[in-house]
Amino acid sequence: MSGNSIGQNFVVTTFGESHGVALGCIIDGCPPGLELTVEDMQHDLDRRRPGTSRYTTARREADEVRILSGVFEGKTTGTSIGLLIENTDQRSQDYSDIKDTFRPGHADYTYQQKYGMRDYRGGGRSSARETAMRVAAGAVAKKYLKQVHGIEIHGYLAQLGPISADTIDLTQIEQNAFFFPDASKLEALDEYMRGLRKSGDSIGAKITVAATGVPVGLGEPVFDRLDADIAHALMGINAVKGVEIGDGFGVVTQKGSQGRDLMSPQGFASNHAGGVLGGISSGQPVVAHIALKPTSSISVPGQSMTVQGETIDMITKGRHDPCVGIRAVPIAEAMLAIVLMDHLLRHRAQNQDVTSQTPVIGMR
Amino acid sequence: MSGNSIGQNFVVTTFGESHGVALGCIIDGCPPGLELTVEDMQHDLDRRRPGTSRYTTARREADEVRILSGVFEGKTTGTSIGLLIENTDQRSQDYSDIKDTFRPGHADYTYQQKYGMRDYRGGGRSSARETAMRVAAGAVAKKYLKQVHGIEIHGYLAQLGPISADTIDLTQIEQNAFFFPDASKLEALDEYMRGLRKSGDSIGAKITVAATGVPVGLGEPVFDRLDADIAHALMGINAVKGVEIGDGFGVVTQKGSQGRDLMSPQGFASNHAGGVLGGISSGQPVVAHIALKPTSSISVPGQSMTVQGETIDMITKGRHDPCVGIRAVPIAEAMLAIVLMDHLLRHRAQNQDVTSQTPVIGMR
Amino acid sequence: MSGNSIGQNFVVTTFGESHGVALGCIIDGCPPGLELTVEDMQHDLDRRRPGTSRYTTARREADEVRILSGVFEGKTTGTSIGLLIENTDQRSQDYSDIKDTFRPGHADYTYQQKYGMRDYRGGGRSSARETAMRVAAGAVAKKYLKQVHGIEIHGYLAQLGPISADTIDLTQIEQNAFFFPDASKLEALDEYMRGLRKSGDSIGAKITVAATGVPVGLGEPVFDRLDADIAHALMGINAVKGVEIGDGFGVVTQKGSQGRDLMSPQGFASNHAGGVLGGISSGQPVVAHIALKPTSSISVPGQSMTVQGETIDMITKGRHDPCVGIRAVPIAEAMLAIVLMDHLLRHRAQNQDVTSQTPVIGMR
Amino acid sequence: MSGNSIGQNFVVTTFGESHGVALGCIIDGCPPGLELTVEDMQHDLDRRRPGTSRYTTARREADEVRILSGVFEGKTTGTSIGLLIENTDQRSQDYSDIKDTFRPGHADYTYQQKYGMRDYRGGGRSSARETAMRVAAGAVAKKYLKQVHGIEIHGYLAQLGPISADTIDLTQIEQNAFFFPDASKLEALDEYMRGLRKSGDSIGAKITVAATGVPVGLGEPVFDRLDADIAHALMGINAVKGVEIGDGFGVVTQKGSQGRDLMSPQGFASNHAGGVLGGISSGQPVVAHIALKPTSSISVPGQSMTVQGETIDMITKGRHDPCVGIRAVPIAEAMLAIVLMDHLLRHRAQNQDVTSQTPVIGMR
Repeated sequence: MSGNSIGQNFVVTTFGESHGVALGCIIDGCPPGLELTVEDMQHDLDRRRPGTSRYTTARREADEVRILSGVFEGKTTGTSIGLLIENTDQRSQDYSDIKDTFRPGHADYTYQQKYGMRDYRGGGRSSARETAMRVAAGAVAKKYLKQVHGIEIHGYLAQLGPISADTIDLTQIEQNAFFFPDASKLEALDEYMRGLRKSGDSIGAKITVAATGVPVGLGEPVFDRLDADIAHALMGINAVKGVEIGDGFGVVTQKGSQGRDLMSPQGFASNHAGGVLGGISSGQPVVAHIALKPTSSISVPGQSMTVQGETIDMITKGRHDPCVGIRAVPIAEAMLAIVLMDHLLRHRAQNQDVTSQTPVIGMR
Repeated sequence: MSGNSIGQNFVVTTFGESHGVALGCIIDGCPPGLELTVEDMQHDLDRRRPGTSRYTTARREADEVRILSGVFEGKTTGTSIGLLIENTDQRSQDYSDIKDTFRPGHADYTYQQKYGMRDYRGGGRSSARETAMRVAAGAVAKKYLKQVHGIEIHGYLAQLGPISADTIDLTQIEQNAFFFPDASKLEALDEYMRGLRKSGDSIGAKITVAATGVPVGLGEPVFDRLDADIAHALMGINAVKGVEIGDGFGVVTQKGSQGRDLMSPQGFASNHAGGVLGGISSGQPVVAHIALKPTSSISVPGQSMTVQGETIDMITKGRHDPCVGIRAVPIAEAMLAIVLMDHLLRHRAQNQDVTSQTPVIGMR
Repeated sequence: MSGNSIGQNFVVTTFGESHGVALGCIIDGCPPGLELTVEDMQHDLDRRRPGTSRYTTARREADEVRILSGVFEGKTTGTSIGLLIENTDQRSQDYSDIKDTFRPGHADYTYQQKYGMRDYRGGGRSSARETAMRVAAGAVAKKYLKQVHGIEIHGYLAQLGPISADTIDLTQIEQNAFFFPDASKLEALDEYMRGLRKSGDSIGAKITVAATGVPVGLGEPVFDRLDADIAHALMGINAVKGVEIGDGFGVVTQKGSQGRDLMSPQGFASNHAGGVLGGISSGQPVVAHIALKPTSSISVPGQSMTVQGETIDMITKGRHDPCVGIRAVPIAEAMLAIVLMDHLLRHRAQNQDVTSQTPVIGMR
Repeated sequence: MSGNSIGQNFVVTTFGESHGVALGCIIDGCPPGLELTVEDMQHDLDRRRPGTSRYTTARREADEVRILSGVFEGKTTGTSIGLLIENTDQRSQDYSDIKDTFRPGHADYTYQQKYGMRDYRGGGRSSARETAMRVAAGAVAKKYLKQVHGIEIHGYLAQLGPISADTIDLTQIEQNAFFFPDASKLEALDEYMRGLRKSGDSIGAKITVAATGVPVGLGEPVFDRLDADIAHALMGINAVKGVEIGDGFGVVTQKGSQGRDLMSPQGFASNHAGGVLGGISSGQPVVAHIALKPTSSISVPGQSMTVQGETIDMITKGRHDPCVGIRAVPIAEAMLAIVLMDHLLRHRAQNQDVTSQTPVIGMR
């Protein structure tokens, strides 16, 4: 596998560049019999797509997805699902001036060196535009997880630069353009973003994503632990520089007597572990946090170099998000859904007899 | 793949339980012609193995590795390398009293529920004892990376509970039992550990691991980015709850004008990115940090339950590390080495023509 | 992986049903820098596509392929290549009468049982229509193999029912609608096919496919031998029931003194092995033969059953090939090309140092 | 994956050379709860091991397998199973004279060219000795398939050179050293083998292997069809040059009206397809045939060359099987078992809901 696929039993493979003809993906391994329409994906695609608020890029993409295969008479058939989104607002000419330069903080330099060439239009394959297909594929996983197993996934912006949520009110998340769970901070966020735009700068963010209703037993020892695969999936989102499960880096100063989640037949007393013990889901909510760096596409000048090896002072023009973290909320949800879906199927493969024969021990 | 393998072109598959007969692994894909002896692995195995200092478990394992195949006349043949370490100090009887109980914070409960049964002796497969084989396999990768490409990997304990390194002096790391780079803190560490032992408690830690000499171009878009695969490998180490690349969670409050690494023909001006841009190595040192939770095997009593569903108060006996983070340093190095080795081979597969034909652009 | 992908370093994943909206595929792992246009694929697509001669189905599909990603300014970029062919002549209504019946010899019954449902239109995913994408992907592999390594692949119809080629004249293959290398038999073939059509029956066939210019060293021990992967790829073509490498089943009655290919510095004296020794290419032409069963879509009535479990007498209507073997020639070529391409990249991954450092021993 | 693994959900990875310290394998993905002892494997290992009759090599290997992990209190735990067989009768000195020569018909030349070096002792990794581990792993699969699903696998020698079985009496197979199902030909076989030994030559063979009790639905479209994966597994056995499913190459001259298996609610009327339709098991016996070439290790002189590029006349000394096909019977059974086991688990992963919810249509 050359890197454009994720999963082992539920496999998502994507293609497409920021300013190419179209984006697409193939979902291989989706169970048959799931009712699926474009509407199931469009909601999350709309949450991710650009141009919906003044806080994100002005590029306008309808991001309308088409199902090309794998669904018959409204239901998945068990064969590979082909999805397609055509790019409608690509403006390659916007990028002709960066053809010969490497934008600092971007993948321009590394792609050029890796491949000896690159599609420079909007970052080509390295653009976050590619994540539209992840969101579409994730929506399929989300629907299955919810419908068949009652697993639900939600994400929110936990922190934007200096502003973090003090209260987590999940009902607020879809009520504002920031996916922010603390309504009392919305005004501050708006003000902060205005200042940012004015200065031509960008800012980092922290996102939390969680899944409830996850059964005990998902995750494989030793390398493909559930948390390891979640880390892989989330760190693979553009701009992510850190991933935490449960208490994350908070455990560094924790004592064992504080951090272990005590248990009784009534359940766990806490969830420091973030729902994963020994790499396997514990039945508690699976909770992860990610850190997203500020985009380097800013209008503050910065030193860089040309393909020919000359020093230049660079301003990145184009239509960019001052905080890429905002739109990453549905992307993180999608990635978590894909990982859980994959592990659900992997678990089934090996453990069908057991799960059907063995009485489940434990908590009430 | 059912979880006990890592890598695509350099594949490491392990077996073995904490108190079983032996641990073993197969390395598939190691290039031929590499000089390899057990001594190449023994050094790192000794760094990881228990019983070497008063700060770690008293279990005594020689951890002597044998090469069973794949090496002929002192060199790797290109075929699969079989490695074996026999367990010599397993004391299963130590664990008979936890046969019917779930130790909180451990994988006892999740393994039992996943598989309908478990090897309860010392955690069985979920024990960190399994990481001995990762260290052995990592040593093979390390040797190849260094010898053929000049890539070197080093790790250190960056923080133990409240005590963090103020200065990073790499020459200190191998001079103390903590792999700690700041000699001025050794006394404080020793004192802290004594107090911990006295209280029967344990503590978390933060480890930094870095690779120098990494060429530009390793890592695959979109899902198998170098940083994503590093996150997968590091989060897959026992007790790890967080992974950062470069500035990690520090980016949340960063501005774009601060965090982007400016560049010129003389090189990058900084390394906030931790050596990875767009998921591909930039030629700078690849830097990662991990957070390890305190072990839950402590003598402070805590509530738990039995397999039969009864509430109990539990004290974990046996021989345990008060800070599992210390011995994780060579493990983290091994995992980073395995990931880099794998990506080096993956890169070669696709990019041989280019790398041989295209003049490398850029920095001097 | 759930079955719709092939390859490890050069990975082809397909989607699409016989009478769906479109067929598509993603090629992941193609080296960068390869000049690629739709014309490179269209030639082989035209050789495979239906409606080109009176010996094949009357369904008319232009099979015009579009490149949606992975190619920039005429060259492959190293990222995933998305390909699409829209179905233009689907006539789903042709198949409404088989909605509730299982055509004998087809996958109707097994798909229904496996998935609990099926896309009955023309066989859905089980239709050979899917192979159009394999031919497109194979054409990319073919171009690379030829251009970079001088490897060429050609296939021909070796036998159609009772009529086999006595002389193998490769220049004849593209001169007739049968891909037949013996011009003296064309009239007999034509006559045989007319008789077949008249009787409403179909016939089996044998195809030979070979690659010249293959370097020594492709193929991995132990399971992924070159011949094993060729067998996997060719047996995976619709209707194939047998695969031979070199002398194939002829070896059953061979003696060791006859079948071994003697060698000298001038080369091998024969090629009984079909270019593969111990699973690794020997530098001789790689030669494989496949047997294709006659299609079961015939107008000779045959007993079958309905989805409801009733016995029926069945005639398969629709537009079908009386000898599916004919159009399988470009498909077999494509599969061989994909396997060789994949193994070329796999070999590179592990053996770059060696191949660059070690003088190649041997034949002149 | 670099070739020493097979399977996706039931993964077998092997190591070991003909004259190395030991052979070993790791089975990853075996369901938990299966009772497993070395005796379960030893029976098939004994059927395969050398030195048991005058028709096979005189090398004496006890082939005693040890279970190193993955089994606890007599049952599989669901974690990776480590198996080991130590080589006891390796005589490396036997092979010092072929250190610098390439035995014709063997992998000496291709390994040397691929890797730039080779373990020349008895063929090293390319030796059929490696198949001992496949037989051990296959025995685990066999036991599970039989115990949980009632699937049984048996193989036999269908033809040895000119002598083929006229009647197939399965009760005879284990009664003679040839695994031959026709007792009336045993004398002829014995006589033929004596003549062969006298002439110092070897002979090819054909083996049939079949599985009964296979449920409908195993196999994945499009590339990982059940028959394609069987072809991969069987062609990957040393010396195999051809694989057939069902009627195999007999279909070339078949008409559609002959070859389709008519069906009714009472079942299929015939099994030309060999139990696979559209790549998916039909519920009928899965039947495959393989052709094995005669070993090239014969005492009839033959031209070859040295590593230095000189022409030589070669006689292969050592202890060899005059018909390697005989001992391949348990190997072929093992490979079929591994493939079926893998596909059983793959099927489960995707189809659990359906199989539990949908009433199975069809035959009584």
